[in-house]
Amino acid sequence: MKEIAKKVKADSFLLMASSNEMRNTCLKNIIENLKKDKEHILAENKRDIENARLENISSSILSRLLFDEHKMDTVIAGINDLIKMPDPIGKITLKRELDEGLVLTRTTTPIGVIGVIFEARPDALVQIASLCIKSGNAAILKGGSEALLTNRALFESIKRAIKDSNLPEHALVQLEARSDVSELLSCYEYVDLLIPRGSNSFVKYIMDNTNIPVMGHADGICHTYVDEDFDLDKSIRILVDAKTQYPSACNTTETILVHKNAVDKLFPRLNKAFNDARIKVFAHKNIIDKFDNAVPATDNSFHTEYLEKTVNVKTVDDIDEAINHINTYGSHHTDAILTNIDSNADYFMNRVDSANVYKNCSTRFADGFRYGFGAEVGISTGKLHARGPVGLEGLCTYKYKLYGNGDIVADYADGKKEFHFKDL
Amino acid sequence: MKEIAKKVKADSFLLMASSNEMRNTCLKNIIENLKKDKEHILAENKRDIENARLENISSSILSRLLFDEHKMDTVIAGINDLIKMPDPIGKITLKRELDEGLVLTRTTTPIGVIGVIFEARPDALVQIASLCIKSGNAAILKGGSEALLTNRALFESIKRAIKDSNLPEHALVQLEARSDVSELLSCYEYVDLLIPRGSNSFVKYIMDNTNIPVMGHADGICHTYVDEDFDLDKSIRILVDAKTQYPSACNTTETILVHKNAVDKLFPRLNKAFNDARIKVFAHKNIIDKFDNAVPATDNSFHTEYLEKTVNVKTVDDIDEAINHINTYGSHHTDAILTNIDSNADYFMNRVDSANVYKNCSTRFADGFRYGFGAEVGISTGKLHARGPVGLEGLCTYKYKLYGNGDIVADYADGKKEFHFKDL
Repeated sequence: MKEIAKKVKADSFLLMASSNEMRNTCLKNIIENLKKDKEHILAENKRDIENARLENISSSILSRLLFDEHKMDTVIAGINDLIKMPDPIGKITLKRELDEGLVLTRTTTPIGVIGVIFEARPDALVQIASLCIKSGNAAILKGGSEALLTNRALFESIKRAIKDSNLPEHALVQLEARSDVSELLSCYEYVDLLIPRGSNSFVKYIMDNTNIPVMGHADGICHTYVDEDFDLDKSIRILVDAKTQYPSACNTTETILVHKNAVDKLFPRLNKAFNDARIKVFAHKNIIDKFDNAVPATDNSFHTEYLEKTVNVKTVDDIDEAINHINTYGSHHTDAILTNIDSNADYFMNRVDSANVYKNCSTRFADGFRYGFGAEVGISTGKLHARGPVGLEGLCTYKYKLYGNGDIVADYADGKKEFHFKDL
Repeated sequence: MKEIAKKVKADSFLLMASSNEMRNTCLKNIIENLKKDKEHILAENKRDIENARLENISSSILSRLLFDEHKMDTVIAGINDLIKMPDPIGKITLKRELDEGLVLTRTTTPIGVIGVIFEARPDALVQIASLCIKSGNAAILKGGSEALLTNRALFESIKRAIKDSNLPEHALVQLEARSDVSELLSCYEYVDLLIPRGSNSFVKYIMDNTNIPVMGHADGICHTYVDEDFDLDKSIRILVDAKTQYPSACNTTETILVHKNAVDKLFPRLNKAFNDARIKVFAHKNIIDKFDNAVPATDNSFHTEYLEKTVNVKTVDDIDEAINHINTYGSHHTDAILTNIDSNADYFMNRVDSANVYKNCSTRFADGFRYGFGAEVGISTGKLHARGPVGLEGLCTYKYKLYGNGDIVADYADGKKEFHFKDL
């Protein structure tokens, strides 16, 4: 593993200096190969699905594991979008003359080597590989073991595309054994960033067992706060969407906070909507009688990411109590306010310490595609580097380039010369 | 300690929502208080210096420990510069209409709570405290124990300024006991970022003993590569400056790499210049006879940050060997090429994987002041978040704000609506 990581690191320096044209050619070759290899890939996926069925794997995993014509079309469309996007590398984000003839630039560069460990979805393999190629990053990829055969077939197509585009051989490497993951965690010298995607406990395990920087999120405990003055119809629609549109997603609302003055107007309609959508409610004991389908909430309820049609409901005395609850119990992912009072929206959005803060819309919007980033490698709840949905930009860093003509620091330290700092 | 960190975290949310005006008022109050308390601060510094002398502390630490009228003027000038700088918080770096009436912005925000552990210089306390206030970050500061009395006096002035400007009480906290540092390392829930400044082994210790993200650099192993075609006079000036202008700085050149075709032209003058500057040379055995004052270099020499007037010299067959050496032995801090060939400069600057890459100037320029950042909390050799000198911008993160009007994801998932992504 260390030897592989070392080779990937060495090749990452070559990839870093590759042109956008070469990287786009590689993406085009991936599309060609995927089309050519389609039969084989879909057949291998059928075998994976067969094996998963025999192991009695849950239907939600089965649906993520499926890679059919439709998924193939979607990943190809995604790669085509990436090809059209401007080169994320070599963008100058600062240009400053420090003194006559001494010019500083800050230029975007790839991060280097990225380790991505992800769940059962084979489409994620293609999406992540394409994002890494477009951003000039080498990557070590480990997919879910349920998708072993599909991933192997997909990776063969990708690997051939890399070779045919004259990109370095170890620009992308796939791991298959679970034991490789624990070794990967110790490759601090060669891996610049780890992106784990998967269950809560899995991401926490990765974070606790490596010195390599980790980007991602463990929990997705999102909130929607209904303010004292709000639009009833829109709010009901939003609350149902935020909880039910895809309950197992990380940006699904787990707790609804309601201003005490909103209770009488909101709860009758909310109760009916939740009954219709078959949502189970954990309610604070003072409002439990407002719902047909409620059980008492405990402190622990508010720390729970349900990933199913279950929601907490709690009343608050004022907007500050809502903000405090969110900053205390939330996972700093996505939190929304439903209000008719603009100043309350600003107050809430400035004080809630989350990657995504929303006014009058569903928390489910937190996603790289919906933000127009083309694709995402994940959503980060960390505050350093990229925060929120992470696309091409989050896969880049920058370097400072200084162009001189014999310039030395002693001249400035001795007062012979002075900086004049002109932004160009 | 956990209790203190918890209070700082709580107050960080208030500080996050403070206006630039309030934060600037606080900075002005700090200046006023420092002026008022000057006699007391300078007297306390004399006591620290006295104590240090009794403990036979090195003259280089004594000079860093000194806080006199001149240092006072410098820190006050620094705070005045910060006041003049635009608010780093609330800058909109992306504004995009996702669909009619659904607007996404990306807005800069403070990181939250920053733990800074720094060396003997009392001026660093004021500089870092001011940077944190200007950027709306709460901070837990631990200065060097040699500067205990000076730091205590300085912190009293700062603390009073915070109170008088109605910023939250625990916006800044100072630690005095060394044992507090190890407890701070476990305050993962309350501290968003650690910035350790000090020796190599100290920074490594911090990095290995906390789950909190760490920003900074351990080693500063910088290189200057002399290409086959170069300007002799300028190159000698640069090489001497890069090694001797301040040998204990992290951006000092530790290894000079020389193209084999440059040897005959460079070495006679370099030998004389190094003799004049009393620089000790560790040279590769094939060139050791070119220097009067050389000993054989080992592999270990190239891994060493000397922090004194000692330098490694090695010849390389071509620019690729130089780049490989730097990417292998360097610390990704600052590396320069001296060349008359522009395409070689580009080749080198694109492939050397360091925070700062230079053409025809001294590595000593890598510094927040010299880049026009006003001040820096340190230089980062990490690739995530801020890289290179870290000023106000590096102390900020961002959040995504989404403004809707009843928007739900189901409408887009069902194909009733489509995103149109218009940048505003």
